[in-house]
Amino acid sequence: MLVLRKPYLLYLGDATLKSDCKTAFGLRDWCRGDVLGEWSHPAGAVTLELPRLAPAQAAAQGAGSIVVGVASTGGVLPEHWQDDLEAALLAGMDVVSGMHTRLESFPRLVRAAATGGGRLVNVRHPGNSHGVASGRKRTGMRVLTVGTDCALGKKYTALAITRALHEAGAAATFRATGQTGIMIAGSGIPMDATISDFIAGAGEELSPDNAADHWDVIEGQGSLYHPAYAAVTLGLLHGSQPDAIVLCHDPERLTIEEYPDYPIPPLQEVIDYYLLVGRLTNRAIRCVGLSINSSALSDEAWKEYRTKLERELSLPVCDPLRGGVAPLAAKLLAP
Amino acid sequence: MLVLRKPYLLYLGDATLKSDCKTAFGLRDWCRGDVLGEWSHPAGAVTLELPRLAPAQAAAQGAGSIVVGVASTGGVLPEHWQDDLEAALLAGMDVVSGMHTRLESFPRLVRAAATGGGRLVNVRHPGNSHGVASGRKRTGMRVLTVGTDCALGKKYTALAITRALHEAGAAATFRATGQTGIMIAGSGIPMDATISDFIAGAGEELSPDNAADHWDVIEGQGSLYHPAYAAVTLGLLHGSQPDAIVLCHDPERLTIEEYPDYPIPPLQEVIDYYLLVGRLTNRAIRCVGLSINSSALSDEAWKEYRTKLERELSLPVCDPLRGGVAPLAAKLLAP
Repeated sequence: MLVLRKPYLLYLGDATLKSDCKTAFGLRDWCRGDVLGEWSHPAGAVTLELPRLAPAQAAAQGAGSIVVGVASTGGVLPEHWQDDLEAALLAGMDVVSGMHTRLESFPRLVRAAATGGGRLVNVRHPGNSHGVASGRKRTGMRVLTVGTDCALGKKYTALAITRALHEAGAAATFRATGQTGIMIAGSGIPMDATISDFIAGAGEELSPDNAADHWDVIEGQGSLYHPAYAAVTLGLLHGSQPDAIVLCHDPERLTIEEYPDYPIPPLQEVIDYYLLVGRLTNRAIRCVGLSINSSALSDEAWKEYRTKLERELSLPVCDPLRGGVAPLAAKLLAP
Repeated sequence: MLVLRKPYLLYLGDATLKSDCKTAFGLRDWCRGDVLGEWSHPAGAVTLELPRLAPAQAAAQGAGSIVVGVASTGGVLPEHWQDDLEAALLAGMDVVSGMHTRLESFPRLVRAAATGGGRLVNVRHPGNSHGVASGRKRTGMRVLTVGTDCALGKKYTALAITRALHEAGAAATFRATGQTGIMIAGSGIPMDATISDFIAGAGEELSPDNAADHWDVIEGQGSLYHPAYAAVTLGLLHGSQPDAIVLCHDPERLTIEEYPDYPIPPLQEVIDYYLLVGRLTNRAIRCVGLSINSSALSDEAWKEYRTKLERELSLPVCDPLRGGVAPLAAKLLAP
């Protein structure tokens, strides 16, 4: 399991577009209490509206890591970004990055890490080893977000459900399986980077035995309908042994993104397929509802779509950004 | 794709039990034409009944690789085995190993490889990179061996079908996905060692576009019913896009080996599940028959079992070791 050192200083480089800083905004929105402030290059134009702290100041306030919260073009780290990261390392902090390029490929950072004693953490390349799955049923409850496709709200939904469970007074932990999720949670396993023999084993490790009424809310990955990534989805599903799934969907998505020959089936069929496959490691698996990314729909169209779907599937249908996911949390907690 | 340098010299170390030399016997039986001879330490007691050749002699006759064909205890390479492997490297050969321990961890071998110019090839740790699966349908025909469990004859069945297709005059290539298979074929991809995001992509790379009437016979891995390895099975199934599957089964196996809580379902259900999952990347997928490991059955019991199964499933049922797999090849080639 990858474990990060909080609290964070979020680094924005010289980004000029908010859309390049999705990771930083996600961290601000989902773990505000773990973020001391932000820092950027003078040429940068994006702010998170957080206190500006130079790396040394942040370190003095107890920051554990500087997190690269912006996508760099082609994995190259501009020299002036390296100045800031080097300063953080020399002040004893870790550098956390989700870039494809490993931080170790920048000699200045390697030297600074050795001097300061901090770590270079590549969330995308964990280099962790996991065991083979045991298939043993674990104590505690688990809900996994699954999807008709990639990139339609599985992380966001899991975070929202965790929050809704907390608001309902339940014990719940968000379990992260992707880079941004791991940065938010401060720990997790990047499922797409595991060796294939150990995917399910990593899934088991991610949500260990827990109190009988505790919920692990597990960030799903990929889709069983994705011709490239279904194996990741399946390994995580089997290792998670979820008691419940929430299906995430975007009604605008008729085929798998970038795979126009791969249509998304009717949602009842999708649910049945996930339950069939998931039953291998948890015979009691059930679907508790849907999380819809309805951003393309008008208020009117969303209301209509939601009503129709709830009637068809006999399940609660939510959009975390349009009314929240309290009905999903309620369904999880219903006796 | 891992590509090995043939012909081989098979190395038996100082093994005293045939059962420790399964890899060497498999290579002798399935690619005899690529094997120049065998070599072992004077203390060894196993022979393949092949010409004895010291490494330097084998190299002089054109050997490309010395293959460690015996399991070493705990991944340790005894000093006297290293003598022989070093001699092969100094003569310019590659060393090929399926051990967990990487050959690079033995300094003598690293030095000898540098001197001789050969490679240290760890079939278990390919270190290869693969692309993301495209989902694009490829030309040519493909059959994949699948199983109710691991270790019940998927490699053997694929090799036997390839041979039967050749005997029927068809163009066919065995595609290896595990260590011994890769040594036999001289190339392949160890699926269990791929990064999970690229399993299906590796499966696509393994059986590229081919002539319309050419059959790739793909060595299956794991089982969709295995709580630890189903993801490997599924990624290979999706990437292979098989036109046909052959289900491998051992009637003595009632539950997944070492997972007594995981029962093996009725075979018709198993076939239906494989076809359902495989349909994602090839809508025309069909099951052409079963390959049974009947070693535990008497001749009488086998005949009875086979007749019953053929009637129940309306499919040919074979044991490669008891009458061969010609009916499976015939079914593949039937118009």
